[in-house]
Amino acid sequence: MDSSKYTTPIPLKDVKIGDTFWSPFMERVRTQVIPYQWEALNDRVSGAEPSYCMRNFKLAVELTHPELDYGVPKDIGFGGMVFQDSDFAKWIEAAAYSLVWHPDPALEKNLDDSIDIICNAQQADGYLDTYYIVNGLDKRFTNLKDNHELYCFGHFLEAAVACFEATGKRKLLDALIRYADCIDKHIGPGEGKLRGYPGHEIAEMALFRLYAITRDEKHLKLAQYFIDQRGQKPLFFEEETKKNQNNFYWKDSFVQYQYYQAGKPVREQHIAEGHAVRAVYLYSGMADSARIGGDEELMKACNDIWENIVKRQMYITGAIGQSAYGESFSYDYNLPNDTVYAETCAAIGLAFFARRMASMSPRSMYGDVLEKTLYNGIISGMDLDGKAFFYVNPLEVLPEACLKDRRMHHVKNQRQKWFACACCPPNLARIISSLGSYVHSFNQGALYTHLFIGSDSTVKIAGSKIGVKIETNYPWEDTVRVSFKIDGSAKFRYGLRIPGWCNHFNLTLSGGNVEYKTEDGYAVIEREWKNGDKLELRFDMPVSFVEANPKVRENTGKVAVMRGPMVYCLEEADNGKELFKLHAGKPENVLFKFEKNLLEGVVTISFKGKKEKDWNDDQLYRPLEAGDAVYEEKELNLIPYYAWANRRIGEMTVWINK
Amino acid sequence: MDSSKYTTPIPLKDVKIGDTFWSPFMERVRTQVIPYQWEALNDRVSGAEPSYCMRNFKLAVELTHPELDYGVPKDIGFGGMVFQDSDFAKWIEAAAYSLVWHPDPALEKNLDDSIDIICNAQQADGYLDTYYIVNGLDKRFTNLKDNHELYCFGHFLEAAVACFEATGKRKLLDALIRYADCIDKHIGPGEGKLRGYPGHEIAEMALFRLYAITRDEKHLKLAQYFIDQRGQKPLFFEEETKKNQNNFYWKDSFVQYQYYQAGKPVREQHIAEGHAVRAVYLYSGMADSARIGGDEELMKACNDIWENIVKRQMYITGAIGQSAYGESFSYDYNLPNDTVYAETCAAIGLAFFARRMASMSPRSMYGDVLEKTLYNGIISGMDLDGKAFFYVNPLEVLPEACLKDRRMHHVKNQRQKWFACACCPPNLARIISSLGSYVHSFNQGALYTHLFIGSDSTVKIAGSKIGVKIETNYPWEDTVRVSFKIDGSAKFRYGLRIPGWCNHFNLTLSGGNVEYKTEDGYAVIEREWKNGDKLELRFDMPVSFVEANPKVRENTGKVAVMRGPMVYCLEEADNGKELFKLHAGKPENVLFKFEKNLLEGVVTISFKGKKEKDWNDDQLYRPLEAGDAVYEEKELNLIPYYAWANRRIGEMTVWINK
Repeated sequence: MDSSKYTTPIPLKDVKIGDTFWSPFMERVRTQVIPYQWEALNDRVSGAEPSYCMRNFKLAVELTHPELDYGVPKDIGFGGMVFQDSDFAKWIEAAAYSLVWHPDPALEKNLDDSIDIICNAQQADGYLDTYYIVNGLDKRFTNLKDNHELYCFGHFLEAAVACFEATGKRKLLDALIRYADCIDKHIGPGEGKLRGYPGHEIAEMALFRLYAITRDEKHLKLAQYFIDQRGQKPLFFEEETKKNQNNFYWKDSFVQYQYYQAGKPVREQHIAEGHAVRAVYLYSGMADSARIGGDEELMKACNDIWENIVKRQMYITGAIGQSAYGESFSYDYNLPNDTVYAETCAAIGLAFFARRMASMSPRSMYGDVLEKTLYNGIISGMDLDGKAFFYVNPLEVLPEACLKDRRMHHVKNQRQKWFACACCPPNLARIISSLGSYVHSFNQGALYTHLFIGSDSTVKIAGSKIGVKIETNYPWEDTVRVSFKIDGSAKFRYGLRIPGWCNHFNLTLSGGNVEYKTEDGYAVIEREWKNGDKLELRFDMPVSFVEANPKVRENTGKVAVMRGPMVYCLEEADNGKELFKLHAGKPENVLFKFEKNLLEGVVTISFKGKKEKDWNDDQLYRPLEAGDAVYEEKELNLIPYYAWANRRIGEMTVWINK
Repeated sequence: MDSSKYTTPIPLKDVKIGDTFWSPFMERVRTQVIPYQWEALNDRVSGAEPSYCMRNFKLAVELTHPELDYGVPKDIGFGGMVFQDSDFAKWIEAAAYSLVWHPDPALEKNLDDSIDIICNAQQADGYLDTYYIVNGLDKRFTNLKDNHELYCFGHFLEAAVACFEATGKRKLLDALIRYADCIDKHIGPGEGKLRGYPGHEIAEMALFRLYAITRDEKHLKLAQYFIDQRGQKPLFFEEETKKNQNNFYWKDSFVQYQYYQAGKPVREQHIAEGHAVRAVYLYSGMADSARIGGDEELMKACNDIWENIVKRQMYITGAIGQSAYGESFSYDYNLPNDTVYAETCAAIGLAFFARRMASMSPRSMYGDVLEKTLYNGIISGMDLDGKAFFYVNPLEVLPEACLKDRRMHHVKNQRQKWFACACCPPNLARIISSLGSYVHSFNQGALYTHLFIGSDSTVKIAGSKIGVKIETNYPWEDTVRVSFKIDGSAKFRYGLRIPGWCNHFNLTLSGGNVEYKTEDGYAVIEREWKNGDKLELRFDMPVSFVEANPKVRENTGKVAVMRGPMVYCLEEADNGKELFKLHAGKPENVLFKFEKNLLEGVVTISFKGKKEKDWNDDQLYRPLEAGDAVYEEKELNLIPYYAWANRRIGEMTVWINK
């Protein structure tokens, strides 16, 4: 590993996004999702499953401090899932990020008040998980495998770091440091401690973020322990299950402990297995650990897993997790489109992993995947009004199948208000509201731009304060302009990602030629930059027809349509029913146009394809008829995938018959 | 309905099969399956799940007659599934049939002895179900929905009728008549009786067979009650569940009571729904009832359901039951090949239904389906050595998916020795050993031949005793010869089924022309037949490429290969791995040949197709490459579907990419 290639994101507070594509999403998150989630956490959304989340916290406070009374009956018990606390943490994180780019005193007050509640629920020794505070602290740390204590801890730690970075206030951070210390007292390599680790990962990457602030070796070591103890023999989860007579749901399954990525040491894991969200959260933590520790062996595992995901197990939308069974990865090239799981949170986790891989080494494939997930498989999880959400993001949907075919039982054909297990909406909120930190990364001598998002950033490189402005109508339009504001001049490497989808591009500097070399998919310019320097990058951005590796049997004979990073789909609203009868044929008259009034403004694609003619319905099978006689001409009309299911219930497909 | 078209099968004892294709299957059943099943019923098969079936009967005897001791510990309890008795009944039925065409004193002695055990287990009031005799008679008739009492009764009734018809011995028949009387006392329209019916159908058709022997109106009425009470409001199963606090597994499912075909009256059922085996057993009983009662309304329901199955929900192999969930039908045109259920018993049940529909009116579509299931989806359930069995008969298999993709968890890639729920092997045994009764059917003035199976039959038509001899090497060869042995001459209609797969045929009588008309797909000759008259029917029997209705989305862009009634498949043993990369293209050099030493002798098919070239595996998606450059030439080699999985574990597919 070449640590000179390490970079870190520009802190969120130093990036101001103003982007034709993303700003509306961020505004939806700020004005719809965050307030709506607050109502949901407080069980005030009519027609939605109650969350019980705030009620649990208030109850935990009342049980801990009898003098405090929020009016919650003391015998009401814990409500919701065992990991309900994490939803609150995700909301805090998203709200904190939004305060960075949109100060809002009312929201900040709300945040402060809710942090007070959390801190009041904290136990004297730092412990802070309402499930056990309500149900009995004697049972805590007895089921790390399934009861999500360390998962909730991880999410709160992420929230605490976000709050501190957004507002400078330490109250939640200090509480979480005390909680981390409490965990460190109970879990780890020392005598009498549990040799455990999280059943659902996230605490690993959160602890690395904490360490970046505290520089306390204890936090680093706990994170590293969680990663390296995982899957060591004897298996902690196996011992814990035996000792505490816990249930082991996957006992008779082929996934076993790899459901938790805990069946073998992480350095021996080279393919993505098990629960997809857990997996990518772990891999993100592993990448952090590899970078921070300069750990080649761990880096190798990260690389192998990365390659396995993006070259064997990733949907064209950047979605991952093929199997509803265990919400999990499946096996190489097994990528069903209709029975897919493709949880929104898993795509978000892949973005986390991609960013961390890019931080180790700026290679465009990381940015490509980051971009692919963001523009497709992540935002598909949210309605265009920000009020309803997908958990599962299918690439092919037949409404009838969702009702009558048990294989698609988990697939919904319209986004839902809120879920009993509501992990995805707040996860969407936190990634979209922190999008600024994904645009660039930098180190002492270099700046890299990974995403083409209109923004105004400030970064200190080689002692100079540099302003970087991106202007673009990407992904609808083909031009990206990057200009620098420098007090005088500054010498540094600047790398602009050239997307994997792009075959030809043109790069100019202030209207003239510019010398660059292509390094790992970045156009890298090393020069003395002057104030006002303006790069213009223009992509060839035609409609492109894409096929899957022939090993993907579910896509045999099929083609997907893309333009730039955007994956397109056919929807019933534009093409009628029975989309599976449509064929691209040899597409003619391929056109694209921006439609301002459609789906909040999208570029649509159309071309002349064909449709299989109906048969006499009395025949289920018949001798093969020849050639084109069985087709009729048909114009196919496509919309960007992320925008599907925003009109009426109907069929959708990404992959189209050739 | 035109009752002049009603026919009945020639009784099994009057048909002697000698057929190059079927005789080996019948011998395998006789020499392997029946003896093996006897060992299994007695828990003497090492490495197989114990059946506990005979043990249950012996225990039931000991509990009923303390003076009889088979050495079974009295406290050992009932073993196996609640419907375990039915396996014994199926064995008896198959063994009885085999005695008809292969007298075997040792087997007959065994049968007599086991019938003694059954009769000893019978209660004073006629009741005869070991599950309740062992577990407490006070609980009998409290869960008709799920506890299979009436299912076991039905199977024993089928066995009793078979025994009587095979051996002339009445002991089991009389026992079952007493059991029928017992059931009639508890269930039916009279005061104080349960308004119930079988949770798993079969008793209906069995009672019609009993009625044909006894002509006792009570038996007819009970059968009709079971059919017509089914699904009447208030729903009996709903009431029963409430009253006895039974579990209702399908409560939250979309199938609800239609899992049992009991959510609405059968006359209001027009599509095939729910558990496939139950369904076709019910439909068989409905067809019996419609014919016997001349019941137009019921016939309409049968017709509608028939059409729904064969035109919307049947695999090309004649398999039915698309969904592992509930082992059930799914919805129109939803025919997945890899996640399919396609239980062997369901295909057998479809053959029962087809024969009964043909008995009402000889239309070739019934014989076509009968033939399709027999030559494909039924016998695929058995190894060529008669020692291992499929429960699920997939049309596409990837061994890796069976292990790692939960959607294919129920699909095995090799036949299994015996199952905990062992319904399929004995069901195979009983249909194959009674095959003789499927060849022809007749009435007072007509004889129809439905299947082209080498055989020697005797039938009395219009007062004359007629010998009908079929000589053929069908399905491998294209010629069928039918000759008549008549004492002098006899005038009757003779109908020969012209299969739906056949476009051209040639029919001659003793070498010369013969006048016939085509009626409902039968070539019908009405004449004064003379002794020695010999018809020769020669089919054009080329290799044919077949496509599915475009509404079958799982078969878009695919083609199946058939010759005559036989469906073919690609197997890894002949074509290597990754069958999904193979394409038929525009098939060239299409050849077929009989291979005596392959798979006990089969006609194989080969042709020049093509294979997708491998990519650089570093690419999961890439811009579409043009046309033929991505293919290489490849000879495709096919074997008959039924014979797959008789060499080594590997991939298989029926549907091939175009």
